[in-house]
Amino acid sequence: MRGWYIESGPESDVVVSSRVRLARNFKDFPFPFRMKEEDEEAVQKRAKEIMVEKENNIDKFEFIDMQKLSPVERQMLVEKHLISSELAGSQMKSGVILSSDEKVSIMVNEEDHLRIQCLFPGMQLDSAWNLCNDIDNIFEESTDFAFDENLGYLTSCPTNIGTGIRASAMLHLPALTMTGYIRGVLEVCGKLGITVRGMYGENSEAMGNMFQISNQVTLGQTEEEIITNIKNIANQIISQERMLRKELHSQNPFRFEDKIFRSLGILSNARILSSEESFKLLSDVRLGVDMGIITNIDKRTINEILISIQPANLQYLVGKQLHAAERDIKRAELIREKLNRF
Amino acid sequence: MRGWYIESGPESDVVVSSRVRLARNFKDFPFPFRMKEEDEEAVQKRAKEIMVEKENNIDKFEFIDMQKLSPVERQMLVEKHLISSELAGSQMKSGVILSSDEKVSIMVNEEDHLRIQCLFPGMQLDSAWNLCNDIDNIFEESTDFAFDENLGYLTSCPTNIGTGIRASAMLHLPALTMTGYIRGVLEVCGKLGITVRGMYGENSEAMGNMFQISNQVTLGQTEEEIITNIKNIANQIISQERMLRKELHSQNPFRFEDKIFRSLGILSNARILSSEESFKLLSDVRLGVDMGIITNIDKRTINEILISIQPANLQYLVGKQLHAAERDIKRAELIREKLNRF
Repeated sequence: MRGWYIESGPESDVVVSSRVRLARNFKDFPFPFRMKEEDEEAVQKRAKEIMVEKENNIDKFEFIDMQKLSPVERQMLVEKHLISSELAGSQMKSGVILSSDEKVSIMVNEEDHLRIQCLFPGMQLDSAWNLCNDIDNIFEESTDFAFDENLGYLTSCPTNIGTGIRASAMLHLPALTMTGYIRGVLEVCGKLGITVRGMYGENSEAMGNMFQISNQVTLGQTEEEIITNIKNIANQIISQERMLRKELHSQNPFRFEDKIFRSLGILSNARILSSEESFKLLSDVRLGVDMGIITNIDKRTINEILISIQPANLQYLVGKQLHAAERDIKRAELIREKLNRF
Repeated sequence: MRGWYIESGPESDVVVSSRVRLARNFKDFPFPFRMKEEDEEAVQKRAKEIMVEKENNIDKFEFIDMQKLSPVERQMLVEKHLISSELAGSQMKSGVILSSDEKVSIMVNEEDHLRIQCLFPGMQLDSAWNLCNDIDNIFEESTDFAFDENLGYLTSCPTNIGTGIRASAMLHLPALTMTGYIRGVLEVCGKLGITVRGMYGENSEAMGNMFQISNQVTLGQTEEEIITNIKNIANQIISQERMLRKELHSQNPFRFEDKIFRSLGILSNARILSSEESFKLLSDVRLGVDMGIITNIDKRTINEILISIQPANLQYLVGKQLHAAERDIKRAELIREKLNRF
């Protein structure tokens, strides 16, 4: 397996990944929910011309046509965070433009004509924002976006108007969750205009103690101010989480390590594992690796497992459709293989 | 570690051990609860003279004086099933005569002057009975036991009068327990005059799915009839247990193996393990080994763990007194060491 999502980045003991996305619409087409089929095709064509067919100094890009993908293939892209589940379920002529390292994914004809998304491992919001900005510039060299002098970029949903930016960080917060202090964090985030969600965006629950924080407001602040705001809040959460981890460990090291090693023992021996249980156990193991308690497992292995045990990726790996019960068996098999490779 | 209790014997997939004991009292001394100190000494002296000081063609025997043992050393003998907890707590001049392989243990001044006990791994009630009989004969060549023409051997407790024999088999019955069919077995045993107890005799709960079956009646039947009766009932329970194991496994092999391997995973990774949890997990692992599901662990290892994780043996091994919480940590450490040696 390759791609940004198995690498580790800065602050990776708490920050799994950073993401910036820009919502953009071409000036001369109706917004997606009012498009005719020829508009959909024309939008696709223009996006491809600019990002795929023309050369640029960022990377080589590839266009993936949603209509040519099986449901499993679409779902795999969702599980890798490369497209939204809305795009996966889309009936329109839609697609995604991917860079070779999958750090850049540009959804075409989702809620807006373009959703330019850059993903980096660890805490790298600046890098993600810079790359988004470069791609935005490539588009703006060749086309005009729907833009209003007073409001800024125009988008299908009013919550995205202005900068059209959403910056987010995926945080692994087991200690805050264990102690219940996460509730306080969520409250404060709400007051500061920060949204907190589970691993798979809106309406998804926090599986495996993973929380995604992102800005609510896209209007009235510059992109840099928004990024800085998220970074500052993330940094506060990171230091709280680190402090609590140390505190919990020093309070009762055996009890703490017992929990971590039991999870490792179950993960590397079970014959049946649901996604939910796997995420829970992997969270403990990740914590153990991050705290130096588990020393013979690589973080890459955990990241790889986290992607590959999800339903679509798992079925793709096995090469056939599987019922939920069959998946639980294959999932356990896969995890055992990967963990016993150390 | 050496001794019969780590070996495997016939039918050892279900039968952990077989035990026969004879209750005997010297004719010319009061029974223990009415003895004076000089009687206690004299009984000890006679038992030693006959079994330790004189040569015999069975083994070399050693006398261990209870009054010279620390509480931990006494408890170790209880944990190895070599003495009763009553003897361990005794204030009298009491002791135990052990053969070098610890298959024979003769308690002196417990409830009766002598409790001649023979222990074998697996289903070997005949061997245990024959050895008991040989030892009984050695005594009877040199001394007279309290005996009544009509009643047979006289004992402190009327439940032992007659043959003075108790024959028992320690059975590992996880499938009968899992399915709840054990209740039916217990009921039938009761009706047939068979007592069922946990691993440590009277009043002990069935830890780790271990059940000891033994005869209630010692009067009106020959020793051979009593042994045959226990053997027959044990054989029925053994075949029920084996059938259920196969059935449970074939019904859902993954679910069955999942339980077994999770227990192995926890056992070989946990940092804190109570006796109770260890017995429970070891029961699953033993089942896995007996069914060929776990192939890289030796039954000897499980038997060795079963003895060495008990409080007194554990403290003896570590070489110092430990609180319960410290024992749980050392126990987990010891189990990890032993299991990861494969």
